[in-house]
Amino acid sequence: MAAPINDTHDASLRSWVDSANEPGCDFPIQNLPYGVFHHEDEDEDDARVGVAIGDMILDLSVIADAGLLEDVDADDEEDIEEDVSAPMLNLLMCSEPARWSALRRRISELLSDGNDELCGDASLMEDALIPMSEAVMVMPAEVGDYTDFYASIHHATNVGSMFRPDNPLLPNYKWIPIGYHGRSSTLAVSGTPVRRPLGQTKADDADPVYGPCKLLDYEMEVGAFVGRGNERGEIIPIDEAEDHLFGLCLVNDWSARDMQKWEYQPLGPFLAKSFLTTLSPWVVTMEALAPFRVASLPRESGDPAPLEYLSSKEDREFGGVDLTVEVYLSSERMRAEGMEPVRLSSGNFRHMYWTVAQMLTHHASNGCSMDPGDLFASGTVSGPEKGNRGCLLELTWRGSEPIELPTGETRKFLADGDEITMKGFCERDGYRRIGFGFCSGVVLPSVMATV
Amino acid sequence: MAAPINDTHDASLRSWVDSANEPGCDFPIQNLPYGVFHHEDEDEDDARVGVAIGDMILDLSVIADAGLLEDVDADDEEDIEEDVSAPMLNLLMCSEPARWSALRRRISELLSDGNDELCGDASLMEDALIPMSEAVMVMPAEVGDYTDFYASIHHATNVGSMFRPDNPLLPNYKWIPIGYHGRSSTLAVSGTPVRRPLGQTKADDADPVYGPCKLLDYEMEVGAFVGRGNERGEIIPIDEAEDHLFGLCLVNDWSARDMQKWEYQPLGPFLAKSFLTTLSPWVVTMEALAPFRVASLPRESGDPAPLEYLSSKEDREFGGVDLTVEVYLSSERMRAEGMEPVRLSSGNFRHMYWTVAQMLTHHASNGCSMDPGDLFASGTVSGPEKGNRGCLLELTWRGSEPIELPTGETRKFLADGDEITMKGFCERDGYRRIGFGFCSGVVLPSVMATV
Repeated sequence: MAAPINDTHDASLRSWVDSANEPGCDFPIQNLPYGVFHHEDEDEDDARVGVAIGDMILDLSVIADAGLLEDVDADDEEDIEEDVSAPMLNLLMCSEPARWSALRRRISELLSDGNDELCGDASLMEDALIPMSEAVMVMPAEVGDYTDFYASIHHATNVGSMFRPDNPLLPNYKWIPIGYHGRSSTLAVSGTPVRRPLGQTKADDADPVYGPCKLLDYEMEVGAFVGRGNERGEIIPIDEAEDHLFGLCLVNDWSARDMQKWEYQPLGPFLAKSFLTTLSPWVVTMEALAPFRVASLPRESGDPAPLEYLSSKEDREFGGVDLTVEVYLSSERMRAEGMEPVRLSSGNFRHMYWTVAQMLTHHASNGCSMDPGDLFASGTVSGPEKGNRGCLLELTWRGSEPIELPTGETRKFLADGDEITMKGFCERDGYRRIGFGFCSGVVLPSVMATV
Repeated sequence: MAAPINDTHDASLRSWVDSANEPGCDFPIQNLPYGVFHHEDEDEDDARVGVAIGDMILDLSVIADAGLLEDVDADDEEDIEEDVSAPMLNLLMCSEPARWSALRRRISELLSDGNDELCGDASLMEDALIPMSEAVMVMPAEVGDYTDFYASIHHATNVGSMFRPDNPLLPNYKWIPIGYHGRSSTLAVSGTPVRRPLGQTKADDADPVYGPCKLLDYEMEVGAFVGRGNERGEIIPIDEAEDHLFGLCLVNDWSARDMQKWEYQPLGPFLAKSFLTTLSPWVVTMEALAPFRVASLPRESGDPAPLEYLSSKEDREFGGVDLTVEVYLSSERMRAEGMEPVRLSSGNFRHMYWTVAQMLTHHASNGCSMDPGDLFASGTVSGPEKGNRGCLLELTWRGSEPIELPTGETRKFLADGDEITMKGFCERDGYRRIGFGFCSGVVLPSVMATV
């Protein structure tokens, strides 16, 4: 079941890390997302687990080594120091939710105003708190398998109506959380530039050609990391799905629309999606999200109820996440002229037709084994309004309604030099706002030629 | 370019391992495929690299430790002993083809009649040669990403005509090696039973239901292991593709046809394919296959020539592999009555529309990074004749032409207790026949109910 609200979510909690208390800060003490980082003077081999607090990173390997996390382990088989000293979150992800919860509670305690176990030790403080500005974030997990869903009915309907005007939403959509296997080797962390891919594209009245993608797009998605997995041949019942989820991040599923259109029949998207998929570095835990859980999207009159294996009272009442996601663009010229990025869209993850629990349960419903660190993304998060659309394909309606930038430049799809930045945050009266940080990337010209 | 024929392929070579010289043996000294194994008395942690020779396995970690492979390493950065002591072929796969070739030459020398470096040392022999009957084969590699192609035009046309009678072969088929990302967590080695999956299926005139798959099928495929990879953003030119290929194996892409039909639009097969995919344990190297390379499938009049990035003289002349693949079935009752399995089909890998080099080059053509140990399968190997069809969907034409078994039982699709065994071998006048061993699995009842 979904993690409950507890003392760690109390809005009155403050940290002795001052920056964490500032209004609008993504990483107050109520958030405590995990990431993997190293100091800019170190190698990637030195990466270990950290927690974001204000504009600092708490190095969990240092405080575990200092004995401050000892009470988190319930028995000798657990070794929190080993888990947080790894260059990936996978070891931590293997745990039971009770241990994740114990670790969160202990970190909250250590960072709270009035607790001096850590902040009272100047030498330890020096080692344990690293300014984000001096840190390099790396991939939060070693992702064995990556899956991409298609869970926004608004996105599916919009895209479907462009590619199949007579048949926008296929008959299976309201029964199955549609998804496809993705490519884990092309996942990368925020900040990785995206090289405009080469591929086959075909104009309506000509033979196909191999060359640079002309219709490069982003997709604003939310990613979910699997915690404990299941054995091959076993399923994950819907009531247990949340216990297998570690947390969420932001995902930019860069897409080559012209390649996609030509290649995707009959086996689905392939090279149009496997040149780069970017993740935000901080994983916001399911427990941190507890105050922001909302009912799943109500079914409209005439819509089928989810089949029993995808249905639970808990999921209906709390399966959704009230998570606002925003996309910003800055062109090379905008940056040269010192302009701020423009916001292209603002959507909400609660508008998805399928919940993260339904996606995970469906994924394992055939006995497919899920492993700790496996990632599934939601598909483009679009909502009912035009301003909610999470990709350019929808926003410019396949290029027919170009977007005008403050420089006077226009965009149907992405140009070389464009930088896309995604942000996400949760707000609710009576609770501290928590944020996801950001997920960004700049478009580099293709190796063959610029377009 | 494709590995050339050399002394190691000489048909007159004989081994002092007598069983390797028997006619019809899959593993003569001309083959020397690699696999990962441990003794039945050992744990999976003890697995290491071996070479099949007759009915024995040569333990490469033992002979490397004895110093017999020293000349294989060209410099201090290479460590053959480390590479072959790993519980996976990935380290060996990272090498340049020249090193693979040096290792093959050295193993051929050590196993040749007249060479007593190994067989002259009784104590070493005892350690280094393990009877296959006492060995457990495990996954040959740690597969980061798995891809499934659709490279048989006969299969694509047959299946297309069932699912889309008005439009069997889509317009992109003759331009693009169509493929989709698969699920690496559900790859397993030959001998792993397949649990009949649960999933959503839908009869034409009813709402969908969640339950055991009723139309379980196999697909006879050939898998190719990537050796050296490419960096993200780089491509693999067609002329260099063979240098990035380590070897081939047999693949059974178990398929749930009823689930596939209901789920596959618009993003392709998902849970219908990700409950189990079985690999044969021995990887036959591209060098071992040198005598059996043939021209790629000639294009028919009116067919487009492959685009330049998928085209080379070398690939046209030697891109194909003359590899016979066979599928056998035995029902539980057949085994109880002591009957031999029946052969369902015999096809040939040379009938594929796209070569392995074209598949790899296309896969990386968008800058997708390929890593050592990544696997791509060919898609069902079907040929022009009915007897060449590589799955039951085609053989029974969607169940309309059931197959009769010697017990009087009939099969439209697989029944619980059925065992599918795939075999593969290459034959050519003047050369020793080499084989792939086999890839097998028994169907277990679903966890929910039997059908």
